[in-house]
Amino acid sequence: MVNQPQSTGLRGQSAGSTEICTVGKSGSGLTYRGYDIQTLAENARFEEVAYLLLKGALPTQQQLEDYIAQLQRSRSLPSPLKKVLEQIPSDAHPMDVLRTGTSMLGNLETEQRLEEQQRHADRLLAVTPSILNYWYRYSLYGERIETETDDISVGGHFLHLLHGKPASDLHARVMNVSLILYAEHEFNASTFTARVCASTLSDLHSCITGAIGSLRGPLHGGANEAAMEMISRWSTPDEAERRILEMLERKDKIMGFGHAIYRESDPRSAIIKEWARKLADDVGDNHLYAVSERVDEVMWREKTLFPNADFYHASAYHFMGIPTKLFTPIFVCSRLTGWCAHVFEQRGNNRIIRPSADYAGPERREWVPIEQR
Amino acid sequence: MVNQPQSTGLRGQSAGSTEICTVGKSGSGLTYRGYDIQTLAENARFEEVAYLLLKGALPTQQQLEDYIAQLQRSRSLPSPLKKVLEQIPSDAHPMDVLRTGTSMLGNLETEQRLEEQQRHADRLLAVTPSILNYWYRYSLYGERIETETDDISVGGHFLHLLHGKPASDLHARVMNVSLILYAEHEFNASTFTARVCASTLSDLHSCITGAIGSLRGPLHGGANEAAMEMISRWSTPDEAERRILEMLERKDKIMGFGHAIYRESDPRSAIIKEWARKLADDVGDNHLYAVSERVDEVMWREKTLFPNADFYHASAYHFMGIPTKLFTPIFVCSRLTGWCAHVFEQRGNNRIIRPSADYAGPERREWVPIEQR
Repeated sequence: MVNQPQSTGLRGQSAGSTEICTVGKSGSGLTYRGYDIQTLAENARFEEVAYLLLKGALPTQQQLEDYIAQLQRSRSLPSPLKKVLEQIPSDAHPMDVLRTGTSMLGNLETEQRLEEQQRHADRLLAVTPSILNYWYRYSLYGERIETETDDISVGGHFLHLLHGKPASDLHARVMNVSLILYAEHEFNASTFTARVCASTLSDLHSCITGAIGSLRGPLHGGANEAAMEMISRWSTPDEAERRILEMLERKDKIMGFGHAIYRESDPRSAIIKEWARKLADDVGDNHLYAVSERVDEVMWREKTLFPNADFYHASAYHFMGIPTKLFTPIFVCSRLTGWCAHVFEQRGNNRIIRPSADYAGPERREWVPIEQR
Repeated sequence: MVNQPQSTGLRGQSAGSTEICTVGKSGSGLTYRGYDIQTLAENARFEEVAYLLLKGALPTQQQLEDYIAQLQRSRSLPSPLKKVLEQIPSDAHPMDVLRTGTSMLGNLETEQRLEEQQRHADRLLAVTPSILNYWYRYSLYGERIETETDDISVGGHFLHLLHGKPASDLHARVMNVSLILYAEHEFNASTFTARVCASTLSDLHSCITGAIGSLRGPLHGGANEAAMEMISRWSTPDEAERRILEMLERKDKIMGFGHAIYRESDPRSAIIKEWARKLADDVGDNHLYAVSERVDEVMWREKTLFPNADFYHASAYHFMGIPTKLFTPIFVCSRLTGWCAHVFEQRGNNRIIRPSADYAGPERREWVPIEQR
């Protein structure tokens, strides 16, 4: 048995070309089809960004109105899908619920031809908040909620289903920004999963089911949940500082800081931080935002590490009354757009993704009959 | 917009090291943990090969008996999973059923810690034939079958559930060989999907759900189904020869021939061909095997292309009364072992798989307000 070389995870190796996104050009920066993330977060609706990612260009006013109306019409759950969701226990991992719900939908509304791909992507975008919240409220409270609302936005629809009442303008606005920030990030592991699956010419539901499974991993999605669990343990900024210093001393991993690709800063962090601050004011928070800011300061002072997109998302989501275990599923509701755009791109210029491996196992061995082992 | 280079699919690029399998060393040849595929197909039980792949070494007599007994005890379906399968229509793609059933099982029997991985892999190996056949017979005939049988082998259990009676010795033997042949094949697209998912430290059910989705694609699994559809159209070897020549003239793709990696032959083909011949004799077939052989001869004479593992599997499965649409799901029942072995290996020496992309999209663009578009 030879020594196994350290796994490299294809870091820095190109696995194809893309027209969708740049990440970390000159150390920071994130663009979707050429548009800077700050510009999009300031000016766009999430549905407009979804249109941009999925259909390649910003919509006109009429196109956007039609698209929003289409999404509004696509929020209902087929009855067999409801019955499936009702079979999933309340202590299930919500990402497993989305993985199963998406897979089930593929049995009921199967993509038969590539020409249908846009329609199925739009349907998934519209219906995913329904899948999650139908299960959530049924499994916890036994309620069979109506998943069709007249909310204009995906984010407003999500909060409406979760809380059983329309979201405030502020909350709908923050969800809009959050969904834009998480929508797309080049060849990350979940998107790459979707592309590998797409390269076999499998259907869209298979690609997205696979991507959800990869995003579920704690090294990928879930950092905002871990950040929430951390900051919610501390009552004051001073306590937070003491605990963070202890954690650094013990070389514990601090979730929500640093990034595999960004070197100077994560351009999404400053944007969501500002909205987290507004939400803190709105809700009358007296410590969670301050704790977050102190952690941010200490991490920079001690380790020159910057908060990534996940860190201030934790308090922002919390201030909107979102249970921590639903944080990563919101990521799905957003990243669906990037995943689908990458599936379309892979299909448009496809070769099956089939790398090689370096063999490090035993040499050819002779068979030993079982009674002689 | 620059010209997009041809997608390369990571062909020839190493994505990591493995101790599990070699494919195509010196043009042919396939080994599982150092043992040649011919030796395994001649001497081993599939459960023995599964043990070898999953646990790293051939079992002793006692270990094999214990393992078979463990698999026998693990064939029952939890009630919520049955209810989910009952919601899936009879015209669903059977691979979508397996994808959904596996995902659902992950909600009910969630892998909580890495130490549980062997137990969950064994459970999946035992229960997958139950998932498929429960749905198949319920959706077609409204029968709620008992999925626990006392069959010793996975292959025998599969045929027993499908046909409602124990398999003949010959059929159980052929299933055993077939499951060995399909068990593992290095970094193919579905296995690579499982490894990408595993690299985020996601759970085993996510990895396998993703792999099923990738195997569903017609460029990956499904070649044996396509081969069956082709040969079943022809009544005589002479007709087959005429049609194949016409197809070659039109440059149609002939399914079941050639291979991305093997250059001289696919070592699995000769093995399953011999069993297909025995089954043809047993069933009194008077044309299908002869048609298959003629297609094989013509492809070699005209194109120097050899049959791959899938081609003679088509007639072999057909002679055992297996419906064509269940061919690729049998592949899942077998390849599960390779997928799980690769997930374990990835976890043992992990770095998140996150390649780069070459950007070929638009340069930085200015925002255009919607009313000016």
